[in-house]
Amino acid sequence: MARGRFITFEGGEGAGKSTQAKRLATWLEGQGRNVLLTREPGGSPGAEEIRKLLVQGATDRWDPMTETLLHFAARRDHLERVIRPALAAGQWVLSDRFADSTLAYQGYGHGVDRDFIALLEKAVVGSQRPDLTLILDLPVAQGLERAGARRGPETRYEDMAQAFHERLRQGFLAIAAQEPRRCRVIDATASLDAVQAKLRAAMTEAFPAELRQAP
Amino acid sequence: MARGRFITFEGGEGAGKSTQAKRLATWLEGQGRNVLLTREPGGSPGAEEIRKLLVQGATDRWDPMTETLLHFAARRDHLERVIRPALAAGQWVLSDRFADSTLAYQGYGHGVDRDFIALLEKAVVGSQRPDLTLILDLPVAQGLERAGARRGPETRYEDMAQAFHERLRQGFLAIAAQEPRRCRVIDATASLDAVQAKLRAAMTEAFPAELRQAP
Repeated sequence: MARGRFITFEGGEGAGKSTQAKRLATWLEGQGRNVLLTREPGGSPGAEEIRKLLVQGATDRWDPMTETLLHFAARRDHLERVIRPALAAGQWVLSDRFADSTLAYQGYGHGVDRDFIALLEKAVVGSQRPDLTLILDLPVAQGLERAGARRGPETRYEDMAQAFHERLRQGFLAIAAQEPRRCRVIDATASLDAVQAKLRAAMTEAFPAELRQAP
Repeated sequence: MARGRFITFEGGEGAGKSTQAKRLATWLEGQGRNVLLTREPGGSPGAEEIRKLLVQGATDRWDPMTETLLHFAARRDHLERVIRPALAAGQWVLSDRFADSTLAYQGYGHGVDRDFIALLEKAVVGSQRPDLTLILDLPVAQGLERAGARRGPETRYEDMAQAFHERLRQGFLAIAAQEPRRCRVIDATASLDAVQAKLRAAMTEAFPAELRQAP
């Protein structure tokens, strides 16, 4: 069986990643693909336990280095227990966040050495890097406003200062600039439908042999 | 105020680390030292939460790489929130396990790349390495028999195969051989009193300016 495809959604708070990933999953299923929609931190039973430690509580609960290690621990579990087996079984895996989020949040945002993060990624992710990464980009103020509207218990990251969110937006754009073959920056200021259309277009462009043009 | 000293206890299951560390702490206090007795994984509120993920549940709950990352995440929290401030305040910190345990258990025991573990240690521990490491050594069968006698809920490591415990014993001995200035191997087959006497002798030899000879 052909290996599936691994697609990740990245971007700051309130960019619409979860909503758009869900709609893209439905569209992919309509194209006859077997889809696994997952998320980070979390996505496997062990990683979801680690997630609880990361997304709840005070913003200074963990030092940025501790946080980096917890994210990669959760990622490793997610990869080994869920993503790798799904890809091997031919599923298309859509993940709401993946390794770029750690580089953006802990590296660009909190100043953890980016070479160290790159090295962790190499050791933990290895050859299982995404085939395509869709980066939803929008101004920080707009993203935080949207995120505030759905405010639940998992607010630890949203509560960090605006300057932090600016750094991580620039971080995602820097990642995209460094890896243009893997990453597509999608303007997320438009309507949900317009953004979804752009995502589908990016998918058919990236996988022309596997997908039909978006209607 | 003079920086305190950082002493770690290492060794396999049932070597008597916790008991001996407690007695050594009492002895150090009798010498007028302000002592902090701590342990890994754990030792800080955050690290104790990570400990729960590590020491309970099925032996195959985590893949060895995930486990390595969780141990270093807990270690970072322990260092930043407890060990570093205590040393800066002049306390003598005694830790029941530290970074050598990860190299022995996950590296020598489970085959995680040892260069990668060394690199994590450099990034996470940095200059805060122990001043002295006391490695309690005894044959695997004897250690597991002792550990079995105090069997509680935290049995995940004890339950691993005997060959695993042999590898980690050899791992600790290899670490000691590579760092003879920092590490002392203590024969732990003797009585509690005899082992404690050896530990006190190792301490007074390592810190002749700060400690009186053991009685």
